[in-house]
Amino acid sequence: MSDASKKGIEELTVNTIRTLAMDAVQKANSGHPGAPMGLAPAAYVVWHNHLRHNPKNPDWHDRDRFILSNGHASMLLYAMLHLTGYEQMTLEQIENFRQWDSATPGHPENFETEGVEMTTGPLGQGFATAVGMALSEAQLNERFDGVVDHFTYVFCSDGDLMEGISHEAASLAGHLGLGKLVYIFDDNSITIDGGTDLTFTEDVQKRFEAYGWHVQTVEDGNDLDAIDEAVEAAKQVTDKPSIIALRTVIGYGSPNKAGKSSSHGSPLGDDEIAATKAALGWEYDEPFFVPEEVQAHMSAAVDRGHQLESEWADRLEKYAEEAPEKYAELTRRLAGKLPEGWDADLPTFEPDAKGMATRKSSGAVVKELYAKLPEFTGGSADLAGSNKTLFEEFGIMSPGHFDAQNIHFGVREHAMFAIANGMTLHGGTRGFGATFLIFSDYMRPALRLAALMQTPSIGVFTHDSIGLGEDGPTHQPIEHLASLRAMPNMTVLRPADANEVRECWQVAIENTTGPSSLALTRQSVPTLDREALGSVGDATKGAYILADSDADEPEVILMASGSEVAVCLDAYKKLTDEGVAARVVSMPSWEVFEAQDDAWKEQVLPKSVTKRVAVEAAATFGWERYTGWDGHVHGLDRFGKSAPAGEVFEKLGFTGDNIAELAKGLL
Amino acid sequence: MSDASKKGIEELTVNTIRTLAMDAVQKANSGHPGAPMGLAPAAYVVWHNHLRHNPKNPDWHDRDRFILSNGHASMLLYAMLHLTGYEQMTLEQIENFRQWDSATPGHPENFETEGVEMTTGPLGQGFATAVGMALSEAQLNERFDGVVDHFTYVFCSDGDLMEGISHEAASLAGHLGLGKLVYIFDDNSITIDGGTDLTFTEDVQKRFEAYGWHVQTVEDGNDLDAIDEAVEAAKQVTDKPSIIALRTVIGYGSPNKAGKSSSHGSPLGDDEIAATKAALGWEYDEPFFVPEEVQAHMSAAVDRGHQLESEWADRLEKYAEEAPEKYAELTRRLAGKLPEGWDADLPTFEPDAKGMATRKSSGAVVKELYAKLPEFTGGSADLAGSNKTLFEEFGIMSPGHFDAQNIHFGVREHAMFAIANGMTLHGGTRGFGATFLIFSDYMRPALRLAALMQTPSIGVFTHDSIGLGEDGPTHQPIEHLASLRAMPNMTVLRPADANEVRECWQVAIENTTGPSSLALTRQSVPTLDREALGSVGDATKGAYILADSDADEPEVILMASGSEVAVCLDAYKKLTDEGVAARVVSMPSWEVFEAQDDAWKEQVLPKSVTKRVAVEAAATFGWERYTGWDGHVHGLDRFGKSAPAGEVFEKLGFTGDNIAELAKGLL
Repeated sequence: MSDASKKGIEELTVNTIRTLAMDAVQKANSGHPGAPMGLAPAAYVVWHNHLRHNPKNPDWHDRDRFILSNGHASMLLYAMLHLTGYEQMTLEQIENFRQWDSATPGHPENFETEGVEMTTGPLGQGFATAVGMALSEAQLNERFDGVVDHFTYVFCSDGDLMEGISHEAASLAGHLGLGKLVYIFDDNSITIDGGTDLTFTEDVQKRFEAYGWHVQTVEDGNDLDAIDEAVEAAKQVTDKPSIIALRTVIGYGSPNKAGKSSSHGSPLGDDEIAATKAALGWEYDEPFFVPEEVQAHMSAAVDRGHQLESEWADRLEKYAEEAPEKYAELTRRLAGKLPEGWDADLPTFEPDAKGMATRKSSGAVVKELYAKLPEFTGGSADLAGSNKTLFEEFGIMSPGHFDAQNIHFGVREHAMFAIANGMTLHGGTRGFGATFLIFSDYMRPALRLAALMQTPSIGVFTHDSIGLGEDGPTHQPIEHLASLRAMPNMTVLRPADANEVRECWQVAIENTTGPSSLALTRQSVPTLDREALGSVGDATKGAYILADSDADEPEVILMASGSEVAVCLDAYKKLTDEGVAARVVSMPSWEVFEAQDDAWKEQVLPKSVTKRVAVEAAATFGWERYTGWDGHVHGLDRFGKSAPAGEVFEKLGFTGDNIAELAKGLL
Repeated sequence: MSDASKKGIEELTVNTIRTLAMDAVQKANSGHPGAPMGLAPAAYVVWHNHLRHNPKNPDWHDRDRFILSNGHASMLLYAMLHLTGYEQMTLEQIENFRQWDSATPGHPENFETEGVEMTTGPLGQGFATAVGMALSEAQLNERFDGVVDHFTYVFCSDGDLMEGISHEAASLAGHLGLGKLVYIFDDNSITIDGGTDLTFTEDVQKRFEAYGWHVQTVEDGNDLDAIDEAVEAAKQVTDKPSIIALRTVIGYGSPNKAGKSSSHGSPLGDDEIAATKAALGWEYDEPFFVPEEVQAHMSAAVDRGHQLESEWADRLEKYAEEAPEKYAELTRRLAGKLPEGWDADLPTFEPDAKGMATRKSSGAVVKELYAKLPEFTGGSADLAGSNKTLFEEFGIMSPGHFDAQNIHFGVREHAMFAIANGMTLHGGTRGFGATFLIFSDYMRPALRLAALMQTPSIGVFTHDSIGLGEDGPTHQPIEHLASLRAMPNMTVLRPADANEVRECWQVAIENTTGPSSLALTRQSVPTLDREALGSVGDATKGAYILADSDADEPEVILMASGSEVAVCLDAYKKLTDEGVAARVVSMPSWEVFEAQDDAWKEQVLPKSVTKRVAVEAAATFGWERYTGWDGHVHGLDRFGKSAPAGEVFEKLGFTGDNIAELAKGLL
């Protein structure tokens, strides 16, 4: 191809991306045309010249990952998917932008659209999650002798860079020297409220240098060659993540709205679209038009993708011969399958009145998970010793050393869980993050995104109540269990003792359609003697009968989760001594219980028994579902208190005596 | 005093701080000795040489603010309060460190302890909240001709600097050039998990330069003169916030634990304390010992404080003569009093079937609040146009211009609310922050801290449901109302129409003991004709009878908040037409309703009426409190969907027809 015709087809392709974005937003009468128009040249360069992917198999494991962190620019991504030949992404889908059940929702959704690696829109999430994808790649690359070997590309906006999570993730990525990350910062000097001079005047380049990144600036967002060279240079730097500050013009081409906030989040309007198309030299009247030569030019991605995946398949085949065990592990992990008998050797715990903290029994389980599941990878936000998640024998990730399962995240909870999501989304790695339950608040947007994306990352949340004692109300969670339970597709697990801990971990590991949150005690709890108590069921049922009277039907049901189960058991003994027919229901997980059949639910909580006391050292909020109007919830609709744990428990009424009294008060 | 005796008393004082910290943690058998020991010299320099405060009046308005962002170092603060003569902070209190109802909780709590400006412990919060204090000072300073004129000092740790919120706040403080902020970074190279080289290797100085800060490094954390000079230099730079990276040794003086994580979060042990005291040349056997000369040296703060406050009182008196109106405004604001008749001219809205979005009616109210309450100060995280909070006629804060009520926070939700807290805590300013309800997740730790601190900052959360339409599930809140309602001391207000908006704002403004969150629609809702409907009560009651049948008692109660109230009214009309005696209860605030007397609660929701349908386009979680087992909750225990709002509402069953059917199903 001559230089002139190359330039011609490139420009035409870039303008096709722009016009598709304009037209789709206009037809939907809703959306964000400005960023796709400004970023179209960069998207063209990355997708045409660099991105290794296979449109006919969006799930090809060794593809490069492309993350649009500024998810509001979704039409940019949909246009690229369409032009490079993703089958689901027809022109009709683009015409149905932002309509019910289309593959083109307002923000990219990985569970709706093939080729979308993750859901983006909440700013900063894509930026941080991509770090997890690169970590997973680095881990697999090192462990499997370079068989997994790809880049992760990220487009991001000034909004992403203002969010705290981007700072956390950037600092950690710089520390670890994740060289296969290539970020393009859409430096368009425009925010929704106006110019970035209103509020965002930091020296972005210097900031990223301070984080240890490789930093480049490209002054003209339309200079395809300069963008291409910068991306190439970024790929060459393999010991630092790279960011390219690309000066773009939002709404490029629009005579009246380019460079203005007005092109950000609203349709340009029919007249302005016409004027823009004229200014861009676009010769086609029909909306949603893809010139034939553009289609031909871009659909080369299909053959190229086929070729790339074939080469990888060959490589994999060779690997099967060279290293059959590693090959088996790799393919199992990439398929997301658990190994046979993975849970056969999980620790069981003998009854013990003294017992141990559930964080401690969790530690014993975690150690075995590390051993049996090499994909199990994560760590703590600088509380590893407290969270009981660090086992150095399984390796600690550090710059240049990624074949390891432990990560020191630093005090960066929000980035931690986004990174866990990225690892899990990547495949081959199962990400988890640990901190105190109270600090789940710091990572809440990433927890929610996992739930929305159906990504089974795991949160390990210790110090789960006032039972942590002296650190006081800033560290004592109250509303956190309710807040997590209220989140769709989040499974909350709060085991009562060491054996429930094992069972809850089993539930969490086997949950492949959403995140799980484990709430664990700081303080010791007895290891229950379920055999002696005649328990029916176990924690894998969500709720079960831990102890029961001999009567046909109990007069009162005591139900609790976690450390309050032992308190209820105390109350049960007192009530039994006094001739009250009581039942104790241990209820580690509402979500798991709700998923059981009606017969089980009725067996555990018979509707006819309306005298019920729910006990949880947490907000009462929500428990009325199980206690109804005739029952009582003993919880905490107040903040905690700094004092030794035992004293706090007693002063706030979490004692067998008090619960027994409350139960009798109902009869 | 000779140089030698000056050095002597300084060293003795510094060691007194250290030994108090060691002894208190040891006696409590819980706490963090390391940071106080490392930071004792810096605390001495700031508190003795610089801090303008009055121990006998901790609430003196023009005091310098001191924020211990690394709140786990609480013993440092308690030691300073004791030594400088705060009456509540007796030695007995220090001996009761971390005990029930002591003034010395594990982390500093502003509501427990005089002289503690804010609650700290969750890392990064103090760092960011201090920016709000400085903003309030800057606003008052400029508006009131320099009468308010003080510095804000912050101690922070590497943990604070790893948290994303510190990046957000630092970037904004640098942008605004808040020159009266002086931060000391406890650069001790130690985190809980080990050395900072595990995870935190960014170039902190360069990073802060990138944010536009004045940056200094002091190499020896025990060099009192160097620290003093650096603080003095920081105070001289008035157009940039300052940070001093102070190289300290955690657990300084401890022969076996200094410089190690082991000194961070556990008692040193009796033997190590003895060894440390020996190493420090400490001659006293008795624990909790304050040498007389130290007491004499430090209690000079009392006279100095009296002098400082007297001078300020004189200045204020002069100001009363010079500028009586401004004086009146200043003293009213500092006293935290609302002006007479502040709400007399709040807009009222005529009934209108078409109506308007509640964010829009909120905008009309906000405009009037700006006008009547010059202390009302805040803004949006780059969604001002959508949140309807920007009114340029009341000024926009910018570098060097702070006599303004609007702030562009940038896409920094977390720092935004912490800054709002700082402004409110400072006094004279009432802070608010605005964003979409979904992004309340990004600021949740700051919302919680407001609730814990009893700080009445206000969150303005628009786009409060699937009713926002096309932006889809990443932007459609589901569990957020439940999550906020579950938080102790948070008042959630979700008005149904324009007049409820006014009433909810009244509640929020008059709430002085905790934060309020307003949830507002993107889409239009009818302005209800409460007179024609014969409504009983209004939104200031939390819940009230919007419409009722003529029957003595309704057969069914429909209850809802926000945009679903109009849906219930539709259902009510259908039910009425079919001869069903229905009542509609509008329920903008659970917390406000719960605070009413029992008579009102029984009048609105008579216990005898058990057929109830609650309707909210949000998680059903928690509504069983009001519907019991005989009622039904129509909500969303799933994520939303990208499509036009009307279609999403209809497809998910938020229509009068569907609600009427659900109600009939109960009868």
